[in-house]
Amino acid sequence: MDIKEIFGEKVKLLRKGKELSQEELALKSGLNRPYISGIEQGKRNVSLEVMEKLAEALEIHIKELFEE
Amino acid sequence: MDIKEIFGEKVKLLRKGKELSQEELALKSGLNRPYISGIEQGKRNVSLEVMEKLAEALEIHIKELFEE
Repeated sequence: MDIKEIFGEKVKLLRKGKELSQEELALKSGLNRPYISGIEQGKRNVSLEVMEKLAEALEIHIKELFEE
Repeated sequence: MDIKEIFGEKVKLLRKGKELSQEELALKSGLNRPYISGIEQGKRNVSLEVMEKLAEALEIHIKELFEE
């Protein structure tokens, strides 16, 4: 798996852990649902600013997006 | 400080901890020196793939780029 795929799997895991749908995470983060879907599929080279939005919506610290 | 500035300060701190110049980090990471300088100045919205290059060059795990 490349870094985008590893990141996508982690986002999906954290989202499910919070019992959020992709649509709910999209609404909370201000991103759109297809973009969330693309991230989770490992297709997006996510930037710092997007990570910050995801972390805020998931109520975690950014570093948790990279923990194993 | 915004997320780009926080990230830039951390990269600078880690680079100095490894006693690398910006030029040396550029060579090790395959990025160019002005880009490294832009990151450290908090001007760059760094992506996953660039973080991976920085982490490899600094010989750390990506999550360490986000530790306080």
